[in-house]
Amino acid sequence: MKRVGVIGASGYTGAELLRLCAGHPDLEIVIATGETMAGRRVSDLYPSLAPAYPDLVYRPYDPADVEGCDLVFLGLPHGESQSIGPDLRKRVGLVLDLAADFRLVHPADYVTWYGAEHTAPDELGQWAYGLPELNPEVATADAVAVPGCYPTAAALALVPLVEAGLVEREGIIVDAASGVSGAGRGPKENTTFCAVDEDFAAYGLLTHRHTPEMAQVIGAPVLFTPHLAPMSRGILATCYARPAGTTSTAELLDALADRYASSPFVVVDERSPSTKDTLGSNSAHLTARFDERTGTVLVLCAIDNLVKGASGQAIQCANLRLGLGETTGLPLCGVNP
Amino acid sequence: MKRVGVIGASGYTGAELLRLCAGHPDLEIVIATGETMAGRRVSDLYPSLAPAYPDLVYRPYDPADVEGCDLVFLGLPHGESQSIGPDLRKRVGLVLDLAADFRLVHPADYVTWYGAEHTAPDELGQWAYGLPELNPEVATADAVAVPGCYPTAAALALVPLVEAGLVEREGIIVDAASGVSGAGRGPKENTTFCAVDEDFAAYGLLTHRHTPEMAQVIGAPVLFTPHLAPMSRGILATCYARPAGTTSTAELLDALADRYASSPFVVVDERSPSTKDTLGSNSAHLTARFDERTGTVLVLCAIDNLVKGASGQAIQCANLRLGLGETTGLPLCGVNP
Amino acid sequence: MKRVGVIGASGYTGAELLRLCAGHPDLEIVIATGETMAGRRVSDLYPSLAPAYPDLVYRPYDPADVEGCDLVFLGLPHGESQSIGPDLRKRVGLVLDLAADFRLVHPADYVTWYGAEHTAPDELGQWAYGLPELNPEVATADAVAVPGCYPTAAALALVPLVEAGLVEREGIIVDAASGVSGAGRGPKENTTFCAVDEDFAAYGLLTHRHTPEMAQVIGAPVLFTPHLAPMSRGILATCYARPAGTTSTAELLDALADRYASSPFVVVDERSPSTKDTLGSNSAHLTARFDERTGTVLVLCAIDNLVKGASGQAIQCANLRLGLGETTGLPLCGVNP
Amino acid sequence: MKRVGVIGASGYTGAELLRLCAGHPDLEIVIATGETMAGRRVSDLYPSLAPAYPDLVYRPYDPADVEGCDLVFLGLPHGESQSIGPDLRKRVGLVLDLAADFRLVHPADYVTWYGAEHTAPDELGQWAYGLPELNPEVATADAVAVPGCYPTAAALALVPLVEAGLVEREGIIVDAASGVSGAGRGPKENTTFCAVDEDFAAYGLLTHRHTPEMAQVIGAPVLFTPHLAPMSRGILATCYARPAGTTSTAELLDALADRYASSPFVVVDERSPSTKDTLGSNSAHLTARFDERTGTVLVLCAIDNLVKGASGQAIQCANLRLGLGETTGLPLCGVNP
Repeated sequence: MKRVGVIGASGYTGAELLRLCAGHPDLEIVIATGETMAGRRVSDLYPSLAPAYPDLVYRPYDPADVEGCDLVFLGLPHGESQSIGPDLRKRVGLVLDLAADFRLVHPADYVTWYGAEHTAPDELGQWAYGLPELNPEVATADAVAVPGCYPTAAALALVPLVEAGLVEREGIIVDAASGVSGAGRGPKENTTFCAVDEDFAAYGLLTHRHTPEMAQVIGAPVLFTPHLAPMSRGILATCYARPAGTTSTAELLDALADRYASSPFVVVDERSPSTKDTLGSNSAHLTARFDERTGTVLVLCAIDNLVKGASGQAIQCANLRLGLGETTGLPLCGVNP
Repeated sequence: MKRVGVIGASGYTGAELLRLCAGHPDLEIVIATGETMAGRRVSDLYPSLAPAYPDLVYRPYDPADVEGCDLVFLGLPHGESQSIGPDLRKRVGLVLDLAADFRLVHPADYVTWYGAEHTAPDELGQWAYGLPELNPEVATADAVAVPGCYPTAAALALVPLVEAGLVEREGIIVDAASGVSGAGRGPKENTTFCAVDEDFAAYGLLTHRHTPEMAQVIGAPVLFTPHLAPMSRGILATCYARPAGTTSTAELLDALADRYASSPFVVVDERSPSTKDTLGSNSAHLTARFDERTGTVLVLCAIDNLVKGASGQAIQCANLRLGLGETTGLPLCGVNP
Repeated sequence: MKRVGVIGASGYTGAELLRLCAGHPDLEIVIATGETMAGRRVSDLYPSLAPAYPDLVYRPYDPADVEGCDLVFLGLPHGESQSIGPDLRKRVGLVLDLAADFRLVHPADYVTWYGAEHTAPDELGQWAYGLPELNPEVATADAVAVPGCYPTAAALALVPLVEAGLVEREGIIVDAASGVSGAGRGPKENTTFCAVDEDFAAYGLLTHRHTPEMAQVIGAPVLFTPHLAPMSRGILATCYARPAGTTSTAELLDALADRYASSPFVVVDERSPSTKDTLGSNSAHLTARFDERTGTVLVLCAIDNLVKGASGQAIQCANLRLGLGETTGLPLCGVNP
Repeated sequence: MKRVGVIGASGYTGAELLRLCAGHPDLEIVIATGETMAGRRVSDLYPSLAPAYPDLVYRPYDPADVEGCDLVFLGLPHGESQSIGPDLRKRVGLVLDLAADFRLVHPADYVTWYGAEHTAPDELGQWAYGLPELNPEVATADAVAVPGCYPTAAALALVPLVEAGLVEREGIIVDAASGVSGAGRGPKENTTFCAVDEDFAAYGLLTHRHTPEMAQVIGAPVLFTPHLAPMSRGILATCYARPAGTTSTAELLDALADRYASSPFVVVDERSPSTKDTLGSNSAHLTARFDERTGTVLVLCAIDNLVKGASGQAIQCANLRLGLGETTGLPLCGVNP
């Protein structure tokens, strides 16, 4: 049994880590921190977790508390991991950060897209990018920057085609829709039920912070348009690219299937992927098409933003690093219906 | 009071015509047909209509019945309008068809996209395309082909930019999401609540029948990817195009605002449009952006697929033709929340 | 054209008044107030209202501003109408309050259920209770306390049976479900999309503030259990009562049908009422059953909480008082699907 | 590893058994039957199951096929288990039926509520009622009638109070709401997305088939009113009863807590239970209140209708019978958000 700490366990990704660890045979939560929630029971904030954690109480973060942990997940708001991450790496053998703090390798990108200087720029590049299907080196990393939800979906769809030379690096468009949990737990005017229900709208036009992360992992510039869909979970990335030469739907599907032949969480199929088929699971479903009429490559990927797009992928990285078996404790099948 | 017949009033567009006519001061429903529902009360099928139509009963279609009508709407499944439309035009002064039967001007398009020869090809081109904001000639037409829901949204977004020469005719992508009512009233495996709820998925990849209609009205080839969103109504079209020269967000917004300066149902604004703001109304909300980083034009349009995308637009056409005032009886404001 | 002021127009009931007035031929909004929103355009807060009110701006409330109004609606949070209502009645010929401030006739009820002394107890009983189907005297009132959403549904269901002596006054239970708009516009932890979506739960167990209002209008004590359903609008009241003697489903349905024979917004039918059939409309749908097996009367009523349960009913009262025709400008048919 | 057969695996309860078994360390699916789906891959019907069952194909039912199974679940439509159940019991050591066929002990109840004579009345009473928290004898049974979804929720709420003598057996009302998956996979007019979305309505007034099962397990007559809520999963039972003497909220909560002190799936708490907290899990959340004002006992229970209300409970029974540990492979925590 590995001892697990969750720093920042009051948000959705933190709570999802607790849910997934409750069903994991080898991971045991020993500490959960939450500054504003300190002293409250986890089950008060998340009654869904009550059967597994009847007595777990949020604590304020104290570096000394986590020293006995085998691994620590960080579920903090963006910017906070920067300040404690470097220190944490010295105290705990495996640190996995679910924020954006260590994902981008160029400090300038933080200034451009996040509006502030990175406070620990020397760390950048030292954290492995935690997308195991595309970056198997994460299995040996002591510090992991777990990818964002949109970049996970876009990268799973596009990287095999870009790296196989099937599509050009110019003119890539990622048009994606997300469930509302991607916006976090805190109440906001644009995430109330009445604002979102029966609505579909784009947001963050041209300026969403996941854009440079996508470009970095895909290795090409992208125009990214996120949309908010009236559902709690799920991301569908519908990606458009220009073919590098003559291609076909069969060739595209083969390229995806080959790339993911040994990836237990990835399903490549002719059918159009549905987010609901991934709900609550760590799976990703993909398809692709070549439109001869307009000369366009279309590739789609569906995931659960909180699982494969965050907490599940973090545990997948930990499983690999700890030799526990890639799929251990992680749901393969979506909760559908 | 104008006497109105609705041929095919048991589907969603037919029922929506009844709802809108109930609030229209100058239109009075005198006949509603429905072959499989003949003999049943409209209020049995649509209890929502009971307060306005407590005693209206579906009849089978009989051409003689509609001769006293001032205008007739056709809400039939695709293919059926072809067989009765030419005859109806001789009996009634104003005929408005909500199906695709008379929208495309090239008979070959029906073979390619609908899989069958058109049975009245001589009619094609004789029916005015009923998108008043872009085709004001509809105000004098006796036969109107009311546009499809997706083409309405895509055309309102793209036509002003294409016609102003701001975007190229190559490389246009229309990525859109629709509420489920677009699939019609009949139960199907992919439109049950459990199939759609909490799901987001693309469908009809590369092959959706609205593609040639979009290309025709926009005057350019398009790649069209529709998605199904877990909501009853609404279409958002997120359109991508390549700029024809140097442009800017301000120039794009101005082009839209100028084109729709005298269109009471169109709102052009910097904010990203929401389908819910149009729910139940005949309005269309638009915005645009130019992304200098990737050199891409982005233009979005939100409508209610059953109102501006079908029955409301049909009444808007009738209002213009009958001199009743373009907005008469048509909701301007969406039901939000 | 009657000149209308809306005091407190930034909340949902205020916005709904604006939506409904936009479709009303005889009511014209001349002023809309909102303290925290003063200076902002109405269309910024509610883009759905943009087509009808492109230039309307929220103002702070100033009593002098409303003196030219023919009627004023109050859409303020509970407690605020008490302070300005008495003064307003002297300035404007017709005042309609949508809060609870003047609904209860006994000052003690405010202490018990609202936790504070009423600040204008002399006003209580001077405001007519604005449920026209049950209280036709509202047609001559200059000051109207518009009923709450739950009491409207429960009263429409139960009052005809209680007053006809068909059910006992002991043992009445009102089990009801509401859409989320009943909780108002402000973001709260329990009304975020992720909190409500895919969830069904009771709230306010034993203590909901609408309980004494129900008891007052029904003339009997009630146990009221409200639930929150994952939808934006709609209330269904499922009411249980004990029969006063031998009765039958037919007798109960007849009692309802007789009582509402001349009520254009009320539909009495054997079918179980659906909230969606009332969406956006001022209609109420009812049915009843007598269960011989357990000796229980069951009566159900569905309404749209923001229309018949608030703003639509307020306009209905105004229509009657101003001699405009009870249904003028008010939708009869729900937006369904 | 126990070998599992699922007879009738194409419906929702069958698919849910496959999902749960995919995460169960000791249960392995060896056969899945489906008459109309025979020859199709399970993953074609349920892409959500593709990662765990890429090659599993539905077969027609053949009794010889299941003889090697350690246990068999029946997920057939009502009425079909009667014909194969008696034979199956002779072939397989443990048979668990998820239909209603063996739940009621009185043959006459089938005639009254299901409209047909039971075809194997001698079996009735020989199948243990599979609600382990209330019927621990199921741990030794070879044939198990797994309870219905509504009766599970109602019984968990009411049985402790009835058996402790805290409430009377007369006048019990169960007012409940269910997600749409309770209606099964087949498309029907009343379960399309557009029919259910944004709607709340009661159905089966006075006549729902779960009524006699509730009465049997609770040991008292009940008036049961089910409602359909716009969500895929979840049941909330809001139950009303008359106190047998003086009681209090504390006494009621204690009675529930005592009864379920050793039940790992049951959470008793002061907070009002939410269906979403149980989504995808086998947990049940309960609370209770005594309303002194009206002298009424209120007790509520939330479950996931497909898990604790069907497939999860079936596996819970199998776990107990096979000595695998009651919670093995069954999610404790709901997927929330």
